Amino acid sequence: MKRHLISAADLSRDDALLILDTADELAKISERSIKKLPTLRGRTVVNLFFEDSTRTRISFEAAAKRLSADVINFSAKGSSVSKGESLKDTALTLEAMGADAVVIRHGASGAPHRLAGWVRGSVVNAGDGTHEHPTQALLDAFTMRRRLGPLDGRRVTIVGDVLHSRVARSNVLLLSTLGAEVTLVAPPTLLPVTVDSWPCEVSYDLDTVLPKSDVVMMLRVQRERMNAAFFPTEREYSRRYGLDRDRVAKMHDDAIVMHPGPMNRGMEIAAEVADSPRSTIVEQVANGVTTRMAVLYLLLGGADLGGEIQ
Amino acid sequence: MKRHLISAADLSRDDALLILDTADELAKISERSIKKLPTLRGRTVVNLFFEDSTRTRISFEAAAKRLSADVINFSAKGSSVSKGESLKDTALTLEAMGADAVVIRHGASGAPHRLAGWVRGSVVNAGDGTHEHPTQALLDAFTMRRRLGPLDGRRVTIVGDVLHSRVARSNVLLLSTLGAEVTLVAPPTLLPVTVDSWPCEVSYDLDTVLPKSDVVMMLRVQRERMNAAFFPTEREYSRRYGLDRDRVAKMHDDAIVMHPGPMNRGMEIAAEVADSPRSTIVEQVANGVTTRMAVLYLLLGGADLGGEIQ
Amino acid sequence: MKRHLISAADLSRDDALLILDTADELAKISERSIKKLPTLRGRTVVNLFFEDSTRTRISFEAAAKRLSADVINFSAKGSSVSKGESLKDTALTLEAMGADAVVIRHGASGAPHRLAGWVRGSVVNAGDGTHEHPTQALLDAFTMRRRLGPLDGRRVTIVGDVLHSRVARSNVLLLSTLGAEVTLVAPPTLLPVTVDSWPCEVSYDLDTVLPKSDVVMMLRVQRERMNAAFFPTEREYSRRYGLDRDRVAKMHDDAIVMHPGPMNRGMEIAAEVADSPRSTIVEQVANGVTTRMAVLYLLLGGADLGGEIQ
Repeated sequence: MKRHLISAADLSRDDALLILDTADELAKISERSIKKLPTLRGRTVVNLFFEDSTRTRISFEAAAKRLSADVINFSAKGSSVSKGESLKDTALTLEAMGADAVVIRHGASGAPHRLAGWVRGSVVNAGDGTHEHPTQALLDAFTMRRRLGPLDGRRVTIVGDVLHSRVARSNVLLLSTLGAEVTLVAPPTLLPVTVDSWPCEVSYDLDTVLPKSDVVMMLRVQRERMNAAFFPTEREYSRRYGLDRDRVAKMHDDAIVMHPGPMNRGMEIAAEVADSPRSTIVEQVANGVTTRMAVLYLLLGGADLGGEIQ
Repeated sequence: MKRHLISAADLSRDDALLILDTADELAKISERSIKKLPTLRGRTVVNLFFEDSTRTRISFEAAAKRLSADVINFSAKGSSVSKGESLKDTALTLEAMGADAVVIRHGASGAPHRLAGWVRGSVVNAGDGTHEHPTQALLDAFTMRRRLGPLDGRRVTIVGDVLHSRVARSNVLLLSTLGAEVTLVAPPTLLPVTVDSWPCEVSYDLDTVLPKSDVVMMLRVQRERMNAAFFPTEREYSRRYGLDRDRVAKMHDDAIVMHPGPMNRGMEIAAEVADSPRSTIVEQVANGVTTRMAVLYLLLGGADLGGEIQ
Repeated sequence: MKRHLISAADLSRDDALLILDTADELAKISERSIKKLPTLRGRTVVNLFFEDSTRTRISFEAAAKRLSADVINFSAKGSSVSKGESLKDTALTLEAMGADAVVIRHGASGAPHRLAGWVRGSVVNAGDGTHEHPTQALLDAFTMRRRLGPLDGRRVTIVGDVLHSRVARSNVLLLSTLGAEVTLVAPPTLLPVTVDSWPCEVSYDLDTVLPKSDVVMMLRVQRERMNAAFFPTEREYSRRYGLDRDRVAKMHDDAIVMHPGPMNRGMEIAAEVADSPRSTIVEQVANGVTTRMAVLYLLLGGADLGGEIQ
């Protein structure tokens, strides 16, 4: 495995399976009520967040602390970074302070890649612009596998604003690596122009795709974009792309419903669907901590998981 | 004891005494210069603050860390919560991330109660609207008991803006449970309309109540409310309800002066009174950490306090 | 050594050497890949920051955590402090909560000194107004000594806006204590009127001073001050006081270039100079953590460094 996790495309099939298997092992340890492992004691993980994202920051923080790492939160707002310090100087500063891993969230696509060029520690991309969010894809794959078994040949449908979604992009890349067949469903104006080169199918009609899907993943609607010219109206969007009870009735019995959160209940997903047994939304959150533990563990070369337990 | 601490009314006399006795034991351990106990190692306490309250947040953070818990601070400002995520989804997220306890501060009365309906972990109310602040009442009771002995029959006078004070409400409830006799002193416009049903007396004349009081607890004046129609002018307030040297002279020798902080010195309390030996204001802060340790310890079922010390 | 570190002037030569020697020892331990020491377990360090300074806060946080102390971050913005609570009441609150050390950053010169009068714990000045920043001076001295050996007789040139620089002031005081010869180079309007009483020389001509310097320390330009009447224009400043390749060519072979960061590349220092082998800028950051570990260790009387390693 590489030293950084910047893109889901960086992961070979073996890498991805190693992460998922490690997460499985960590989940089993956690089910034995062992909540803290000493494997990363003395290591420092810095959460470098240029955008607010409390959920993602907390998930990484919980993951690192359960492995006994020290966590330092660095919100770039109001810092010298926002006063014009270059990302390079910030990187060199964190490196010099002894960061073993930097978890970075940044509004600009590519920022984690550049960061990785400047530091010896590991860089984990926690979301960069509209580019990628690889740990989200990993936790989604982990969730699917726990519910459905191996992903080879599984049909995954991703619905919504693919154009602006790093979650969609990372999922397409990782799921195809793992052998799943992905279909994107979105209004034509909300698909990237390069989508033809992505390893997936595209459809504009959710209802015909639903019966064949093992997984339906709803993307979050960014309400602030709803009035833009390329966006359907709220009502139109919900009517054509929202997942309500009637649509769920078309899914086969074992199919699951996913959402990266936070949800707009009543918009892209009906409340009753979000709370139904098909929904994995809460599991995704729990699996997020477990999967990020696996990523940090593997990148930082923690001590043997079978070792002494705290 | 219940799994949550939402209201002082939830505490039976036995519950309240158990918390105070546990706090006593923790204080003794601390006096032996043992500052950190391993009892909550591996547990995660989330501070979920929808309002700024650095003092309360730090007090809970220090309490949890002294018990070796991991602490995650979640300021709801700027998070998806403020972008319209429901409190329920926030709750399910924290639950899924493995929070063993959620300490919640919220501007809306009743929010901690609703939160408790959604999570398996413990919920601790760290102040909700004008409703309650039960750990403040517990630390106040702990402080009184350390200074005065058992509270049965003790006379406690609470002075100020009772209408908007969760501190007053929680204190009235807890102190009556513990057998103390509480008198509220406030301008008529700053008393709740339901005060007749509260287990306490009401007076409008501070000077007649002072000589009979064992405890005088001054509430913080919210200066931003001072110009409202129902509020006396600053000068009038200070003259009728402020605790100055002349008024303290009317108190009996062992009576104590309390304030939840932060104080407006010169407004509701004179600086020389705040700094006098009668004043327990600094003790209250120290006791706040100890009492919150006791609450977290009991709610989370920590390992035996007599166990191995870190 | 005193209980607090408020000013570089408080440090005797023996004190300063003790801190530097302790930092040396800590650096050696760190080079043996032991990243965490148990010496301050159970101690609480509060970072009380009235001004944003992520770099300094993180450096102290990393230092305290490597010594196994608990760290509580207290940003005074939005807290009761900003609602008018006095610094004294804040101090008493932190003291009561069990802070063993308070690291304070404040916009007002003298605030750490006042704080030290109110608490039993140790106070560390992390920058107060235009007054002092003693740990910056210590890490600078540590960096010089690692590169150049003992500082006695070494020639250090400090260049830039001395008037507003707590870094310059603390460095002048500490370096003279350690036997170095300091020369300040600045526009006349950016020197303090009391500079004649400082233990250093003054020059207005950088080019004549450079060939004799062992160390050239560039101060950060506060761009927001650049248009003030007493300030040269940006271009004029850079031409007369900026350190570019041509100027560096005048320095002797072993001379080093320092900067406290964050840099304005292209303004007070050219990018190629900042990244050259002479530059100690990244080392300064790493040494900042080590030096602050030494300060916290000595002030809090940690357990023997030779003791058991975690």
